[in-house]
Amino acid sequence: TVCTNVRVSLPAVCFVWQIAMIVLFGVFIRYNEEADTHWQEFRRENNISSDIENDFYFRYPSFQDVHVMIFVGFGFLMTFLKRYSFGAVGFNFLVAAFGIQWALLMQGWFHTLDPATGKILIGVENLINADFCVAGCLIAYGALLGKVSPVQLLVLTLFGVTLFAVEEYIILDLLHARDAGGSMVIHAFGGYYGLAISWVLYRPNLNLSKRLNGSVYHSDVFAMIGTLFLWMFWPSFNSAITDHGDGQHRAAINTYLALASSVLTAVGISSVTQKKGKLDMVHIQNATLAGGVAMGTAAEFMITPYGSLIVGFCCGMISTFGYVFVTPLLEKYLKLQDTCGVHNLHAVPGMLGGFIGAIVAASATEEVYSREGLINTFDFEGDFADRTVGTQGGFQAAACCVAIAFGIVGGGCVGLVLKIPIWGDPADDNCYDDEAYWEVRECFLNSPPVGAVAL
Amino acid sequence: TVCTNVRVSLPAVCFVWQIAMIVLFGVFIRYNEEADTHWQEFRRENNISSDIENDFYFRYPSFQDVHVMIFVGFGFLMTFLKRYSFGAVGFNFLVAAFGIQWALLMQGWFHTLDPATGKILIGVENLINADFCVAGCLIAYGALLGKVSPVQLLVLTLFGVTLFAVEEYIILDLLHARDAGGSMVIHAFGGYYGLAISWVLYRPNLNLSKRLNGSVYHSDVFAMIGTLFLWMFWPSFNSAITDHGDGQHRAAINTYLALASSVLTAVGISSVTQKKGKLDMVHIQNATLAGGVAMGTAAEFMITPYGSLIVGFCCGMISTFGYVFVTPLLEKYLKLQDTCGVHNLHAVPGMLGGFIGAIVAASATEEVYSREGLINTFDFEGDFADRTVGTQGGFQAAACCVAIAFGIVGGGCVGLVLKIPIWGDPADDNCYDDEAYWEVRECFLNSPPVGAVAL
Amino acid sequence: TVCTNVRVSLPAVCFVWQIAMIVLFGVFIRYNEEADTHWQEFRRENNISSDIENDFYFRYPSFQDVHVMIFVGFGFLMTFLKRYSFGAVGFNFLVAAFGIQWALLMQGWFHTLDPATGKILIGVENLINADFCVAGCLIAYGALLGKVSPVQLLVLTLFGVTLFAVEEYIILDLLHARDAGGSMVIHAFGGYYGLAISWVLYRPNLNLSKRLNGSVYHSDVFAMIGTLFLWMFWPSFNSAITDHGDGQHRAAINTYLALASSVLTAVGISSVTQKKGKLDMVHIQNATLAGGVAMGTAAEFMITPYGSLIVGFCCGMISTFGYVFVTPLLEKYLKLQDTCGVHNLHAVPGMLGGFIGAIVAASATEEVYSREGLINTFDFEGDFADRTVGTQGGFQAAACCVAIAFGIVGGGCVGLVLKIPIWGDPADDNCYDDEAYWEVRECFLNSPPVGAVAL
Repeated sequence: TVCTNVRVSLPAVCFVWQIAMIVLFGVFIRYNEEADTHWQEFRRENNISSDIENDFYFRYPSFQDVHVMIFVGFGFLMTFLKRYSFGAVGFNFLVAAFGIQWALLMQGWFHTLDPATGKILIGVENLINADFCVAGCLIAYGALLGKVSPVQLLVLTLFGVTLFAVEEYIILDLLHARDAGGSMVIHAFGGYYGLAISWVLYRPNLNLSKRLNGSVYHSDVFAMIGTLFLWMFWPSFNSAITDHGDGQHRAAINTYLALASSVLTAVGISSVTQKKGKLDMVHIQNATLAGGVAMGTAAEFMITPYGSLIVGFCCGMISTFGYVFVTPLLEKYLKLQDTCGVHNLHAVPGMLGGFIGAIVAASATEEVYSREGLINTFDFEGDFADRTVGTQGGFQAAACCVAIAFGIVGGGCVGLVLKIPIWGDPADDNCYDDEAYWEVRECFLNSPPVGAVAL
Repeated sequence: TVCTNVRVSLPAVCFVWQIAMIVLFGVFIRYNEEADTHWQEFRRENNISSDIENDFYFRYPSFQDVHVMIFVGFGFLMTFLKRYSFGAVGFNFLVAAFGIQWALLMQGWFHTLDPATGKILIGVENLINADFCVAGCLIAYGALLGKVSPVQLLVLTLFGVTLFAVEEYIILDLLHARDAGGSMVIHAFGGYYGLAISWVLYRPNLNLSKRLNGSVYHSDVFAMIGTLFLWMFWPSFNSAITDHGDGQHRAAINTYLALASSVLTAVGISSVTQKKGKLDMVHIQNATLAGGVAMGTAAEFMITPYGSLIVGFCCGMISTFGYVFVTPLLEKYLKLQDTCGVHNLHAVPGMLGGFIGAIVAASATEEVYSREGLINTFDFEGDFADRTVGTQGGFQAAACCVAIAFGIVGGGCVGLVLKIPIWGDPADDNCYDDEAYWEVRECFLNSPPVGAVAL
Repeated sequence: TVCTNVRVSLPAVCFVWQIAMIVLFGVFIRYNEEADTHWQEFRRENNISSDIENDFYFRYPSFQDVHVMIFVGFGFLMTFLKRYSFGAVGFNFLVAAFGIQWALLMQGWFHTLDPATGKILIGVENLINADFCVAGCLIAYGALLGKVSPVQLLVLTLFGVTLFAVEEYIILDLLHARDAGGSMVIHAFGGYYGLAISWVLYRPNLNLSKRLNGSVYHSDVFAMIGTLFLWMFWPSFNSAITDHGDGQHRAAINTYLALASSVLTAVGISSVTQKKGKLDMVHIQNATLAGGVAMGTAAEFMITPYGSLIVGFCCGMISTFGYVFVTPLLEKYLKLQDTCGVHNLHAVPGMLGGFIGAIVAASATEEVYSREGLINTFDFEGDFADRTVGTQGGFQAAACCVAIAFGIVGGGCVGLVLKIPIWGDPADDNCYDDEAYWEVRECFLNSPPVGAVAL
């Protein structure tokens, strides 16, 4: 019954939404002046001396790195389950491809709508922001991996992108907080959004699928592809939309250092908490990334290289402890089933990253930043010209609370929508199994061989 | 007998051809002024204010993305067969490494031969073009996967690159058509070239290898690595050699959107055409890319963002339908065995992309492009200064026919050459099997376990 | 006993060293002027017209490519063993994450310590150099793969990075040799360093683990991910820190060509030396890269395109011959166990690359380079303004000997340290086995199925 349903609802949703996207793009979306054939005139009018100063050349390499993180990084990170690799990488692909379109519209309406013409003008920075926006939904997918249908994921994405655009508008525009790599806007929001949905969709009989909730040898190697592309390109993620010049340069350095530090503490805690000191691939695949998550806000600030190392040090530890101790407790006492442990990799490090950003902002000084540097880094211009770093720190902390609140409340509501039994979700004994939604041509490699059964 | 033959012919071909490349490079190929130590003088003479305006910085990031598509993208996309992953990724590697050298020479003779010195001057743009040229041959390999020997592939590449350079010269220089991402020049040509060869090499008894013509679970996951790197970097492919500034920027945006749209319609059609609505990995691996193929010509034009979505929408659908309905018919009625379905992913979307380009070119207006934009976009300069957009559209359509004709006729002739029984191709019951050309150290994982056989 | 030991020593080393890094970074490391908020002032003072001239935009795309080579390239190249993929990719990750931090300090003290303030100022070029430095240690890991504990690897890295920084200082600063892609500094040093350690740690009873010293089908495919990312991004590796403009451009072209040429000769020799002409994945995975190693020194010189092809031609051949003939002899007669064959891929091609660089430097002429080009390419400035190309060639050759000597002598000493029985290395019958250091959740796929055993 599940599948017959999906055969109607999945194509219906795909086609209706894609047609809606075409109509809305037709009404609203145009190229910005750097992607339009009028660029040469624009250059002359603005005294831009060379084509190389087109924003494309500042941001396109970072965009491609972010793009790899979204599609290969998140997709392959979730392939670790022995029998859900198609769903991991395939539904991640579907969700992201839909989400980026809806994100271009939602973020456009809030941020770049030209009031004169009513058009949203897009360029490479908008593509990056759309990828960022989708990341929030993919994080939420991590909490739900193996337990939801593709239609549920598309609904989750529609609402998730919408909520994202609103919280982002509140945080970046109204509160005027800085969050270039999205510790708050992406990770804290996405993590709590997924956890809240998972809490609402709690399955008391999920242990019927317990046999499939684990990895095999090669699925763990596939997951390392995801881990490594996320880890390597995280400096690009956190620097992709920071200020040209020193902003991008500094954000990349800080993230590089925090990530390196996370690896050592994740390995250390993984070894010390396992019997016999053996390392657990779950920790290596996930907690090594916590430094990148936690630097999402502060990476563009003058946090100093050793400050970055400290952030990575603490978050690598906290995240690994989360996998070892907190996830089992959350399931036992809070009825929270979190397949990929997004609580430990995104929710908590994202929240910490938000507060670290607040502290670093509040302790900024003119000696360290220079007057001009302070204005550039925190955008103390226009309505915000008189804001002090202390006030900025306060708004940063408030912003973090907004992100968490949006995640929890929004996730709760969306969870209720997803609980309506019309979305073709898998039965309790059919979770974590690609057979539910994919043509799988062979019998399961790890099932007992024929000879063994016969004996 | 096959293998003894290959032991002589494969090394012979590799060494003879590599030595020929060295001699021809010695005679013809030199660095261009941007890669030569005279660059500083060149800068001063041409009033170039900074090293950053060296073409390297405009194009190298895109080049590397294209390079990944050629070697990892095409290579891993073809690893889906249960027992031909070595051949997929290994022969792809061999073909591409040889082809880029021959392409630098062939394209150089036609496009960048300096008449004064008789030298071909190369820089980063030539490396991109060489990668593009090789893509045509790798597409053709897709139709032949598992059915040909490495020596046949090298012969296919020698002729394929030669044909490519000629059709490219006719299309880009004589007809003055635009085809930056190669819908016509690369995909339509390469697709029909491979199909024509496959048709000539028809094997009536191929069902003797039927047991190997399919995937296993993990080989499908490997193939997704190829799919995703192709999908993610396709915006770089279509923008790699477009005009500096807005040209590259716009081509990337258009391709990004078309690809996103393809994913949704490929998923929708895949689900609706399968019993029980289950998705088929073949469609997800391939048809999601159709939008990128179809935008190869029009990506640099002002096709508008919603226009790009429509292209992706239609081609994702058409391509998936092709996999479901057309490929079986082609095999049954046309005797056309197309292992990877290049008909559906390259030949048809490439052809459509060519005609879409013609239509978009013919409907260009000065209001939309500006006078200067029109000249820049379509290169209405020199001999072509008086060409109208309508004429341009006609030439674009003619160019598409040239590409298809070269593919079919060239492929037919090369197929006849490859039919000569001296190239060590595998026997009918030995196709799709790495054992034919590779040392494989273990017995087949999926063969029945010993116990089962004994019972 | 091994594992209890590791449970104490591995976390202890990780935490002690990471805390030491934080303290040392706190004392020594700051952002350079291009990554600091004072950049806008720096720009004005130095008349830099645009943010795009920040070194970040010259080098960041290359940095990311190098980063992928270090973490995915080296990591996955070593996953070929049937049961050591976790160790390959996981310990590679650990070693690199620790090494880059220590490298920033060591290289900073030798190269970029500001004498006025006592601070090391870092930017994107330092990140690249740190990645380079770590590459030497990862190469050494290749010789030891499967035979050492993670604690031994961290010790190897601590000493390896230290030795690297010293030899690099001698080679680049004192001898004023050029070695942008590190044929000598990275590959010859790293290769001989690993071989010397492996020689000291010789295990006479290693054949007790013989059953695990080989690949399975899918582990060979995983290794190709490593091979291809190394191969594709090697042009970025060799051009990452060369001069802006023509230097980076030329180095990328030369490396691209040498690599292409290597593939053909590696395939040719692989086929001709195997019975029945079948290709061996070990050769395709490794010897195809020899051209990149051998171009590490000469890539930035005017070696000419055909010169690059010749280098790749020879080194692809030599490297494959090494795998076929030399590695077995080294083990038999020299008691040298070299798991990945780093002798054939790094030590010998690196050494050859050093001498090729010397020859190309010695034969440089003002006609070919122009006076200015000669000065720029070889940095004939300051104390070295009067050096002739002949002298430069001599110093280049001397530099190569220095690198090898550092590798052999340093490796011998570090080997003795690693021989102390306190580091928790695996027993002779437990080598090449992830079970020693990792939680592995399933029984071995390739073990005989239950049914077979029962019969």
